[in-house]
Amino acid sequence: MTIIEQPKEYKVIGTRPIRHDGLDKVIGKAQYGADLKLPGMIWGALTRSPYAHARIKRIDTSKAEQAPGVMAVITGADMPVAEAIEIETGEEVTNLAHASDKLMARDKVVYKGHPVAAVAAADQNAAIEAARLIEVEYEVLQPVLTVDEAMASGAPLVHEDYAGKDLGEETRNTNVADHFRHETGDTAAGFAQAAVVVEREFELTMVHQGYIEPHNATALWKSDGKIEIWTSTQGAFGVRSSVAPILRVPETDIRVTPLEIGGGFGGKIPIYLEPVCAVLSKKAGRPVKVVMDRKSVFEATGPTPGGRIRVKMGANDKGDITAAEVDLYYEAGAYPGSPVGAGAMCALACYRVANARVDGYDILVNKPKTAAYRAPGATQAAYAVESVVDEICQALGMDPLDFRLHNATREGDRRADGPVYPRIGNLEQLQALKDSEHYRTPLEREGADGRLRGRGVANGFWFNGGMQSCVTINVNSDGEVGLVEGSVDIGGTRASIAMQAAEVLGLRAEEVHPVVVDTDSVGYTDMTGGSRTTNATGYAAYLAAQNVIAGMKERAAILWESNADDVEFEDGVFSSKHDSELKVTFKELAAKLTETGGPLAASGSIRQRGSGGGFGSHLVDVEIDPETGKVDVIRYTAAQDVGKAIHPSYVEGQIQGGATQGIGWALNEEYFWSDQGVMENSTFLDYRMPTALDLPMIDAIIVEVPNPTHPFGVRGVGETPIVAPVGAVANAIHDAVGVRLTQAPMKPQRVLAAIKEKNGNGA
Amino acid sequence: MTIIEQPKEYKVIGTRPIRHDGLDKVIGKAQYGADLKLPGMIWGALTRSPYAHARIKRIDTSKAEQAPGVMAVITGADMPVAEAIEIETGEEVTNLAHASDKLMARDKVVYKGHPVAAVAAADQNAAIEAARLIEVEYEVLQPVLTVDEAMASGAPLVHEDYAGKDLGEETRNTNVADHFRHETGDTAAGFAQAAVVVEREFELTMVHQGYIEPHNATALWKSDGKIEIWTSTQGAFGVRSSVAPILRVPETDIRVTPLEIGGGFGGKIPIYLEPVCAVLSKKAGRPVKVVMDRKSVFEATGPTPGGRIRVKMGANDKGDITAAEVDLYYEAGAYPGSPVGAGAMCALACYRVANARVDGYDILVNKPKTAAYRAPGATQAAYAVESVVDEICQALGMDPLDFRLHNATREGDRRADGPVYPRIGNLEQLQALKDSEHYRTPLEREGADGRLRGRGVANGFWFNGGMQSCVTINVNSDGEVGLVEGSVDIGGTRASIAMQAAEVLGLRAEEVHPVVVDTDSVGYTDMTGGSRTTNATGYAAYLAAQNVIAGMKERAAILWESNADDVEFEDGVFSSKHDSELKVTFKELAAKLTETGGPLAASGSIRQRGSGGGFGSHLVDVEIDPETGKVDVIRYTAAQDVGKAIHPSYVEGQIQGGATQGIGWALNEEYFWSDQGVMENSTFLDYRMPTALDLPMIDAIIVEVPNPTHPFGVRGVGETPIVAPVGAVANAIHDAVGVRLTQAPMKPQRVLAAIKEKNGNGA
Repeated sequence: MTIIEQPKEYKVIGTRPIRHDGLDKVIGKAQYGADLKLPGMIWGALTRSPYAHARIKRIDTSKAEQAPGVMAVITGADMPVAEAIEIETGEEVTNLAHASDKLMARDKVVYKGHPVAAVAAADQNAAIEAARLIEVEYEVLQPVLTVDEAMASGAPLVHEDYAGKDLGEETRNTNVADHFRHETGDTAAGFAQAAVVVEREFELTMVHQGYIEPHNATALWKSDGKIEIWTSTQGAFGVRSSVAPILRVPETDIRVTPLEIGGGFGGKIPIYLEPVCAVLSKKAGRPVKVVMDRKSVFEATGPTPGGRIRVKMGANDKGDITAAEVDLYYEAGAYPGSPVGAGAMCALACYRVANARVDGYDILVNKPKTAAYRAPGATQAAYAVESVVDEICQALGMDPLDFRLHNATREGDRRADGPVYPRIGNLEQLQALKDSEHYRTPLEREGADGRLRGRGVANGFWFNGGMQSCVTINVNSDGEVGLVEGSVDIGGTRASIAMQAAEVLGLRAEEVHPVVVDTDSVGYTDMTGGSRTTNATGYAAYLAAQNVIAGMKERAAILWESNADDVEFEDGVFSSKHDSELKVTFKELAAKLTETGGPLAASGSIRQRGSGGGFGSHLVDVEIDPETGKVDVIRYTAAQDVGKAIHPSYVEGQIQGGATQGIGWALNEEYFWSDQGVMENSTFLDYRMPTALDLPMIDAIIVEVPNPTHPFGVRGVGETPIVAPVGAVANAIHDAVGVRLTQAPMKPQRVLAAIKEKNGNGA
Repeated sequence: MTIIEQPKEYKVIGTRPIRHDGLDKVIGKAQYGADLKLPGMIWGALTRSPYAHARIKRIDTSKAEQAPGVMAVITGADMPVAEAIEIETGEEVTNLAHASDKLMARDKVVYKGHPVAAVAAADQNAAIEAARLIEVEYEVLQPVLTVDEAMASGAPLVHEDYAGKDLGEETRNTNVADHFRHETGDTAAGFAQAAVVVEREFELTMVHQGYIEPHNATALWKSDGKIEIWTSTQGAFGVRSSVAPILRVPETDIRVTPLEIGGGFGGKIPIYLEPVCAVLSKKAGRPVKVVMDRKSVFEATGPTPGGRIRVKMGANDKGDITAAEVDLYYEAGAYPGSPVGAGAMCALACYRVANARVDGYDILVNKPKTAAYRAPGATQAAYAVESVVDEICQALGMDPLDFRLHNATREGDRRADGPVYPRIGNLEQLQALKDSEHYRTPLEREGADGRLRGRGVANGFWFNGGMQSCVTINVNSDGEVGLVEGSVDIGGTRASIAMQAAEVLGLRAEEVHPVVVDTDSVGYTDMTGGSRTTNATGYAAYLAAQNVIAGMKERAAILWESNADDVEFEDGVFSSKHDSELKVTFKELAAKLTETGGPLAASGSIRQRGSGGGFGSHLVDVEIDPETGKVDVIRYTAAQDVGKAIHPSYVEGQIQGGATQGIGWALNEEYFWSDQGVMENSTFLDYRMPTALDLPMIDAIIVEVPNPTHPFGVRGVGETPIVAPVGAVANAIHDAVGVRLTQAPMKPQRVLAAIKEKNGNGA
């Protein structure tokens, strides 16, 4: 662990206690969506489109309605939203008809697996059987399957209502749903100053988050109009605000209870099943539960987009980047809203580029609507940019880390899309990687059996979300406290938030009992996502704990017939400023709450504005079998500025997990599409994610440059580590075999073909 | 409704909205203990003693251990408490060995139904079957079954360790566990001034609360030492503090989730199953659930005591009570702790008695340990005292309400046990009953078929518990709020507490969403009992709402670039003191929380010291069949000072419910004991509770004399209405047939026998 600045000694922060939810999860006691059982609960199942693009001519539900045990059958006609209405949800404008149609098609199916009807029945098998009895007559349409097809003039339109949008000449009457540009300086002038200019195009395909737990939801629409939802989600309040307009009910008539979550990575921010379960429930008068199968998860939830990326970058002979242009063509999927916006902001975020232009295109295709996946949109851009940077380094003969350090953004720099960086740790984390034992150890170039080795580096940037969080702390008479939060715990945030409260209160982490509760039981809290939770909900916990201390000072003052201003608190002990005899520990005072006025509870809430973001550079050694093209990662080190590691084990785990997912993306993971837009590998057998056997131990270097906007200096950690890996692996492959792969994943057949081509014996 | 004082117009308080939990309960969605299902959950069953008093010689669990599906078998030897330890729990001293033995006997069984072993198995039937395979060898001992047997010198001792206690001459070496005396003035002198002195003895038998839902508990003792409990209880925090010492674990290692409760009436304050489930769970490594059957509920939970009561009272010819003596001999059951203490405080609470003595005896018998039952101990005492008062009225030729008004305690009077009354409504409620149409309408003395009619009145007193409560309120962006509370909702307190918050916040009751949560998720809150909840938790809600308003004023000040002191709040609108243009409603401001700093939550907590208590007088007309002795209640009116009725329907419901239970107690309900201490009527078929068909509509007169220690003047309501009925019915029977029944219940054979005796043809 490389500590750059550490202004204060902490007692709890920086330690590694066992997570509060660990045992429950290990022994099977933690309640996930699939475990939920409610009195009178029945099961739902969905009928899904076999076509990626088709008009629905007729749906006949009569056989399903008569099937054994069936209590409700619905189609798109039963969904409450009947027409296009645009509403603002959070920072986006949502087309309600699309939001509803995405979950249950009405006129048209626009992706394979698109729900067209749903059934609720006494048990799961009865529901699945009945869903098969729904007869749908389709008029099959030509699907649009790539960004190039989609942008071609005269392409079939996924949605007619976007075609008219004036987004510039080349996008008119195509499937481009959005186009924007960030521009700074004069790129033509910049390229004119360059000694070397590299321009390349890259291609990616859709990749799924691959969380183990399938989506699920249970809903009960009660006869008083109130709706209860239990679901595996990254944010219960987000579910509430997403479901309400689709069901046309007031938000607070919905109560959402978040169950434990078996992975999300951004993919469990959107809703898929909740409104469908609710409408089934309204019809059946019972709680209705749906659990997706793996095939539906792949086909009909939100992967991260494939697409095409063009990068042109120039540098002068001193190694200064003089100009860069990036064009990002991202698949939105069947509805608008790819992460191209974030990708565009991240693309050049690691570098000082005086002359830059980034164009982003959000492109409709007949594939599942994309969703957030860990640093959404940034990995794709970094793959392209970091490959080009690598090529420039070689052209200039510069060490790739020296070049990145030389051009690295730092405090006061302005990002191409506008914002000025506050204190960030880009330089420090690059330097930490450069100083690592791994980087200082030269790579042996040849492995066993003639395998070829290479080394690559890449840098990556991701934001820290801030947003809103609220925490309430209740003091027990034995001096332990309950901590009530609305942040779903995906990666150990019960611990990382409780630890921040414990630090303030002078307690051990185990003496804070965190509970994640429903939307009626805690103040508004945004989703666990955007690397915001340990930062913002931790901040709210810090504030709640400060308010507890203020309340406890009042109690001490009652005991001492003094006033709260005369009471100090340090290291778990309250003392009088005026009488050194008067001391009472937090626990002793907690035992006296009854006699000093009763129970004590206090809340803290925050609208966090984020931090400068997180930077992480990755170093990878690969070994390639020249006979098969198979790439093995043999050593991997990732450095990252995390601000302050509250629980270092979980920070390391995030870095290792992000790197692992990035490696899978680089080497193996992809949606195989048929020419009709059918995913051909919708199982975990065929969709190849890395396992522990595929990877070396990933060495995580924690760099701590405190975030000035957080009381303990926390930055978000979870997303940054997936940004660099694809580029780093590509650069390592190039280093090993001298070919630059511009298509991800860099699977054996592609590597082999490139080697053969380089050696003059390929196609 | 008779309003005596109403200082303020309310918008929500005093209205009758639909209760928040009403629909859930009606449609079967509310989760009761029997509904709970957890992953891996198994079932427990208990083996219970067939004897009321026996020594355990040997327990053989081997057959049970080998039964199909069995995962754990325990006996008293597995309970963590091995020796007698005395600890303070709340205001009582608990003998831990007794607390544990009560739930699972070790050496001796002391009541029929006493658990001696428990089994956990894969399903409920397997557990019940296996529990039957436990072999226990007993040495049967002579049970002690009445207070007179128990106090006889040389009586078998229920527990040897109480026999040595020096409680006065007559109790030495008997089963008297406690004896105390309240004394004021000089009763001998008082009786000397009397023109009439009446002395009588009364006898009662045990009566059960008769809640519909049997006791249940589910526990999971995890391998990290933490314990989770789900149970139907009147107080989750009370369960936590009761279970912790019995299991020898720290309190905050236990998390108790209160499920919905199907009636309690005091009987669901004690724990019965939770530690047993926990110990089974520890052995089995799974969550273990036990649901009692009705027989066990009757035999092995806590009814209210029977016993013997002697009352002597004198009055002068002006109608002043000059002296009173009351001796209360109450069955404790098999462990000490009858409600005789409360009975003694209530016995003379309605009357100014300058010269008074009350003696209370807590007497061990081989019957289930008594528990609280609605105004515990007061009904028994009132039956005796109100019968004697009635007799004095007749001797003096005074109207029974005039006599009670003449002698009624009022503000400033001192009760025989010490406290001085603050503002109380005893006079006002007696006057309201006197003014009622019922009282002003003379009774027709004869019914159809020669049935005889009579009218009786009685007065009753019960305390208002205060104790501790904590409430947290979370503000939603649409201006509705979540209200988090720890008070289990038995009789509509979600509504009555939410309404107090709504009144402060300027919202409708429906815009406050109350949730009852577990012990980790809210500040310490005492049980729902002692008529405290609407008062004390309502007060906490009031304070939390005030704190929300203070927080909202700060937000308004941010909007107006002003400070919070310059912001006023009235009728749901915040306004500037200085600029009449600046106004914002609560809802509008709630929508601006994000831009003014994020979510808003606030807590309120209180240690309430109660109020002067509640007085309620009841008027009943009965009709008696002289051929069978059957008594029918034909008209019933109850007046009660409730301070302020937050939700008048639920107040009326409490008054009607209390009267109904009291009528059952007066006329039908009783434990039939065999001479070996076996209850012979342990089903609802044989234990005769009144149904709607047995009763007329009970007219409830709400009298409102505000409680000065509560912001809305609330007094506790739930318990007072069970105090007067038994006495009122006894007096009505006397009025009808001229005989005074001194044994409850006044069942047909007793009434018939008394009529026959009076007519000279009885035994």
